Amino acid sequence: MSKVVASITTSLDGYITGPHDGPGCGLGEGGERLHYWVFGGPWTYEEEPRGEATGVDKAYLDGAMVNLGAVIGGRNTYDAAEKWGGTNPWPVPFFIVTHRNDEPAEGFTFVGDLNEAFARARDAAGDKDVSLMGGADVIRQALRSGQVEQLNIEIAPVVLGGGKRLFEGFETSIGLEHIGVMQSPFATHIQYRVLREEAADA
Amino acid sequence: MSKVVASITTSLDGYITGPHDGPGCGLGEGGERLHYWVFGGPWTYEEEPRGEATGVDKAYLDGAMVNLGAVIGGRNTYDAAEKWGGTNPWPVPFFIVTHRNDEPAEGFTFVGDLNEAFARARDAAGDKDVSLMGGADVIRQALRSGQVEQLNIEIAPVVLGGGKRLFEGFETSIGLEHIGVMQSPFATHIQYRVLREEAADA
Repeated sequence: MSKVVASITTSLDGYITGPHDGPGCGLGEGGERLHYWVFGGPWTYEEEPRGEATGVDKAYLDGAMVNLGAVIGGRNTYDAAEKWGGTNPWPVPFFIVTHRNDEPAEGFTFVGDLNEAFARARDAAGDKDVSLMGGADVIRQALRSGQVEQLNIEIAPVVLGGGKRLFEGFETSIGLEHIGVMQSPFATHIQYRVLREEAADA
Repeated sequence: MSKVVASITTSLDGYITGPHDGPGCGLGEGGERLHYWVFGGPWTYEEEPRGEATGVDKAYLDGAMVNLGAVIGGRNTYDAAEKWGGTNPWPVPFFIVTHRNDEPAEGFTFVGDLNEAFARARDAAGDKDVSLMGGADVIRQALRSGQVEQLNIEIAPVVLGGGKRLFEGFETSIGLEHIGVMQSPFATHIQYRVLREEAADA
């Protein structure tokens, strides 16, 4: 059965970027440390990352890829990642939520809002999962509207002391259930099932 | 060797209480869920918790107790916990940081500031560990001043959507190193070594 899985990396203090992120600045000051796990160890903005995930991190990623059917990302993420060099980095359709009318780079599909993204991505994914990769704003939107079935938080072992918070301005309480946890030197990967709260008049 | 271990439970969105915590209100709205792991499962403020930690949570607590030499807590925590019924809940000396001049309940020692608390607690602990149990303000103070050697974060599987944030106003970046992780149905226990950053002129 297809499900929507939101996945994002945060610092221990809950930031998905360091201070001053954006186009040309990646994940902000110190933000490289969030993604050591993706690249197999330390890297910096000055020297592009060349490594790949290893060990527990590779096993975790490989597990997620098996059932991947489509990916959704926000426009800020697309811009901050500099369009991933102009090529969809996933082997499946990649939908970018944006209000702008410019043309997407090859392999990307622009959609006007998150609901349209879910409709298109579910269609494309068939029985496989729809991965919602962030940024924080689209994950918050999807959590608020009850459209996330699984939440994967990868906690990098760093306190960043500033940046963009995943749960900034998020005032909804949500029950979660553990699916599992894996830990490498570079991240603690926690997987949660998102619980549907019973309606007040149930 | 004695070390300072700060330990605290947070929600996935980084809150150590729900909204409206305080004397008579425990850990605030929904805050019971933070401590399901301590009491072996669900409980509510209406019916006092009676259970004890079980399984992974018990193993985790037992591991921490082996080397426990002294405990430090903040005054707000002491008040919110209603003095733990007037009895020190730990089998070791318990120091409460407070500016007020009232008399402590039996088994507690009041000290005027965090540095005095560390000095007294290290003395009392000998070769064993000093546990800094929170609240958030004393943990932030101790992290800022480089006095924490190990940080244990117990993440309860809940998004609270409000309350007091552990890292509120904390603008220092700190490198961490994984020591280990354990997960029960009620918490993911992550243990970190706190890294000393090299001095800029080293």
